[in-house]
Amino acid sequence: MDLVTELRNLLTDEQVTANPTVLENHSRDESYHAPSLPDVVVFPKDKEDVRKVLQFANDHGIPVVPFGLGTSLEGHVIPYKGGISLDFQMMNRILEVRPDDMLVRVQPGVTRTQVNNELKKFGLFFSVDPGADATLGGMAATNASGTTAVRYGVMRDQVRDLEVVLADGRVIRTGGLAAKSSSGYHLTGLFVGSEGTLGVFTELTLRVYGIPEAILAARAVFPTVKNAVDAAVAIRSTGIPVARVELVDARSIRQVNSHSKTHYPEMPTLFLEFHGNEDGLKRDVASARELAMDQGCLAFEFETDSKARSQLWEARHNLAYAFIHGFPGKKQMVTDVCVPLTELPGAVEYARELLNDAGMEGGVLGHVGDGNFHVIMMVNPGDRADLHRAESLNEKIVEYAISRGGTCTGEHGVGVGKAKYQRREHGDALAVMHSFKQVLDPKGILNPGKIFSVE
Amino acid sequence: MDLVTELRNLLTDEQVTANPTVLENHSRDESYHAPSLPDVVVFPKDKEDVRKVLQFANDHGIPVVPFGLGTSLEGHVIPYKGGISLDFQMMNRILEVRPDDMLVRVQPGVTRTQVNNELKKFGLFFSVDPGADATLGGMAATNASGTTAVRYGVMRDQVRDLEVVLADGRVIRTGGLAAKSSSGYHLTGLFVGSEGTLGVFTELTLRVYGIPEAILAARAVFPTVKNAVDAAVAIRSTGIPVARVELVDARSIRQVNSHSKTHYPEMPTLFLEFHGNEDGLKRDVASARELAMDQGCLAFEFETDSKARSQLWEARHNLAYAFIHGFPGKKQMVTDVCVPLTELPGAVEYARELLNDAGMEGGVLGHVGDGNFHVIMMVNPGDRADLHRAESLNEKIVEYAISRGGTCTGEHGVGVGKAKYQRREHGDALAVMHSFKQVLDPKGILNPGKIFSVE
Ligand SMILES: Cc1cc2nc3c(=O)[nH]c(=O)nc-3n(C[C@H](O)[C@H](O)[C@H](O)COP(=O)(O)OP(=O)(O)OC[C@H]3O[C@@H](n4cnc5c(N)ncnc54)[C@H](O)[C@@H]3O)c2cc1C
Ligand SMILES: Cc1cc2nc3c(=O)[nH]c(=O)nc-3n(C[C@H](O)[C@H](O)[C@H](O)COP(=O)(O)OP(=O)(O)OC[C@H]3O[C@@H](n4cnc5c(N)ncnc54)[C@H](O)[C@@H]3O)c2cc1C
Repeated sequence: MDLVTELRNLLTDEQVTANPTVLENHSRDESYHAPSLPDVVVFPKDKEDVRKVLQFANDHGIPVVPFGLGTSLEGHVIPYKGGISLDFQMMNRILEVRPDDMLVRVQPGVTRTQVNNELKKFGLFFSVDPGADATLGGMAATNASGTTAVRYGVMRDQVRDLEVVLADGRVIRTGGLAAKSSSGYHLTGLFVGSEGTLGVFTELTLRVYGIPEAILAARAVFPTVKNAVDAAVAIRSTGIPVARVELVDARSIRQVNSHSKTHYPEMPTLFLEFHGNEDGLKRDVASARELAMDQGCLAFEFETDSKARSQLWEARHNLAYAFIHGFPGKKQMVTDVCVPLTELPGAVEYARELLNDAGMEGGVLGHVGDGNFHVIMMVNPGDRADLHRAESLNEKIVEYAISRGGTCTGEHGVGVGKAKYQRREHGDALAVMHSFKQVLDPKGILNPGKIFSVE
Repeated sequence: MDLVTELRNLLTDEQVTANPTVLENHSRDESYHAPSLPDVVVFPKDKEDVRKVLQFANDHGIPVVPFGLGTSLEGHVIPYKGGISLDFQMMNRILEVRPDDMLVRVQPGVTRTQVNNELKKFGLFFSVDPGADATLGGMAATNASGTTAVRYGVMRDQVRDLEVVLADGRVIRTGGLAAKSSSGYHLTGLFVGSEGTLGVFTELTLRVYGIPEAILAARAVFPTVKNAVDAAVAIRSTGIPVARVELVDARSIRQVNSHSKTHYPEMPTLFLEFHGNEDGLKRDVASARELAMDQGCLAFEFETDSKARSQLWEARHNLAYAFIHGFPGKKQMVTDVCVPLTELPGAVEYARELLNDAGMEGGVLGHVGDGNFHVIMMVNPGDRADLHRAESLNEKIVEYAISRGGTCTGEHGVGVGKAKYQRREHGDALAVMHSFKQVLDPKGILNPGKIFSVE
């Protein structure tokens, strides 16, 4: 019997397909990484389906690659060894909102916009916001974060409990509903960020927050990137509880202007947001403004009204797509290092110099309140020299970050793209990680080739 | 050769002792758990010493029990299988303060008061505050928390990086200096809370915070425990960023009055603290006061001046020792469940009923903003009936909590006292935890018998 027939016998016909277009859609992500087809795409409806598929795959040594929305940027979902792409789009129900416990329980295919639409009815919101819409399962698997991490933390900080199906079909829960626990080993934290290599999530219980009484957005323009970054670092160090602080460099603003026909000053800009009560916010924003002025800030605007706030932030929101649509036929390579705050000004300057020296186009932007920044480069995946140039710049930035106590990936994850840096960053701890992988997935069926290079 | 001589050959004479008083001091903690002597106490001076001792112990199958200050409450440090008690008092140096990165790097024997004295010079503080003074190594190993977790998180949230010596003498680093990372498996979170069973910490890098611009302390008296808890839950749910919210019941206030000759109203009381800027705080405290009044609050006092604040909180601070000194010859058994916020009023009422039904003396108090509360019972460890009565009450409270999605231990950890609940709370996940233990410590030399009951 062939794979499709066997899997259809386990589930139902419409849950299993080898339709070429569907295979194609599960062969790539949104980045420069080379595509590779799965043998079959499977759409589980519940944990029992997942259990059956994993047990079958484990018995036969067939690779299984969990698939959320495929927006990850390091080849995470690409089935380089073929096998099953396990797509969670049929598991997209919000199972329970517990408003007074500030918790929501969801299936892994629920997206962050979907959950936020539901939570709004309760005056609540889910804090993590990667630029793309993404599934909560995928976000947990990559430990995603985004603009609000500086205030609310990363995905790992939000996950209270996971239901996980292991490679051999065992089903475990990693946590509970209590706000804190010192009971047993912290498996939740380990599974978050495991990129589908340790187990498959079938349910998530997530922390949510009350929509703040007042929100204030601000935009501050600076003469140099260094000034902007120094201002961000100063704002962080004084402990002003800023909710978002984003850097967008001049090149990126230019990209937005040409894409959206806008006229923002083409200079390094910080986008800020403050959450709190009205009286407190006024004080916070006044302190932030002062620190910005100390760094030569040329214009500091702020808005509280929801619509005006969106407008103020528009250039930041449109950024990724301004690049993507501005270079048709090209694909993005995005660096993603995160460094200690004091190393951030140097790291950003270094990245800009590398771009200039290589005569390459690229925007520098990032979640600078966390020390996390990206260089977006648009590359032609068919052009080896182009790819190589970008890859070598990426390498230099990673080397700079790691040698200063930073990490090769602040939020996008390892996938295949950052696997080669794991040994350099983690040293002997990598062997410990690998030993956990071997214990839970001795046959190596779960997203093989990701995180660990074939060693 | 005997153990002492062999270890002295590895280290120096004064680092190894079998002096009866020293052995005795390492045979017990501050709780009701039965003491048991180690064969030898060893005082390492650096990671190299730790490496040598572990390698030696592993080669010979000798148990090793890391020892901080021995303030843990579930028999964590008691060497029930003899062997080596590894005491970190000689590794008590603050290695580096990075004020602008909001980080401090310490040896494991540094205590929280010691680190706070140093950080104060930089306008910074370390947030986690278990009632006792404790070492940062011990606090990381138990995932300690305390009054401030509601605002700043638990120990696990503060640990950025650990240097860990594994059972076989390998030395790894689990994290880095960056504020966030999606690189590799999150080993830091797994080692935090592992209670010396997975590896020995020789260095910790911890997150610190700026001392807030303004601090306001409050005390609110309620007619019933239910009113007090409901007020705490309401304050949390509206998202007021309260920094501390502690419940102390009438029985406990009575204990403080008789211990300190004070005259606090012997009624359920909430102790609160708010951190922020002055304008924001005024609003926060006004909102909190209103929510307290909705719950029939009889008196709501607040203070901003540092000395007046301490005085306002005095009854809370003196609590544990008021019980300990009030019952000479007895030892404490402290329950430690944590439940979802909505389950807290029911859980606290249930605990109080159990105490009354059993005709037992005991205070109810806790970090109610997290859903974590304690029943302090003073027991006579020599009296089996007394111990059994307290133990059975503890069991009922744990059962109540777990069946409502809570945990058997919110902050004290498992040790030996909570080992019997691990299977009930974690189900098949316990086998996964145990498999990690076996990978890292195949001979079972690291704090044997803790977390996992002999199965
Ligand atoms: C324009 C753009 C901007 C972005 N900005 C950000 C940003 O600011 N911050 C950020 O963190 N990321 C960002 N990303 C990356 C991406 O959005 C995140 O990595 C996101 O978490 C991926 O979610 P997904 O649902 O698309 O997952 P996928 O890409 O489908 O999968 C990601 C990983 O999760 C695994 N996985 C998926 N579902 C499960 C499951 N149920 N169980 C176990 N494993 C599973 C997959 O195997 C894979 O390893 C951006 C991407 C784009 C295209
Ligand atoms: C009056 C009182 C009030 C308390 N209040 C609280 C509270 O509010 N919140 C709270 O969380 N706890 C509280 N506790 C419990 C206790 O203070 C904490 O558990 C604390 O973390 C223990 O620290 P320690 O240095 O005494 O560690 P120890 O008791 O010496 O050791 C604790 C555990 O850590 C391990 N360990 C120690 N050092 C290392 C190392 N370097 N590497 C690896 N493992 C190590 C030990 O083997 C042991 O398993 C209280 C205790 C008392 C007596």
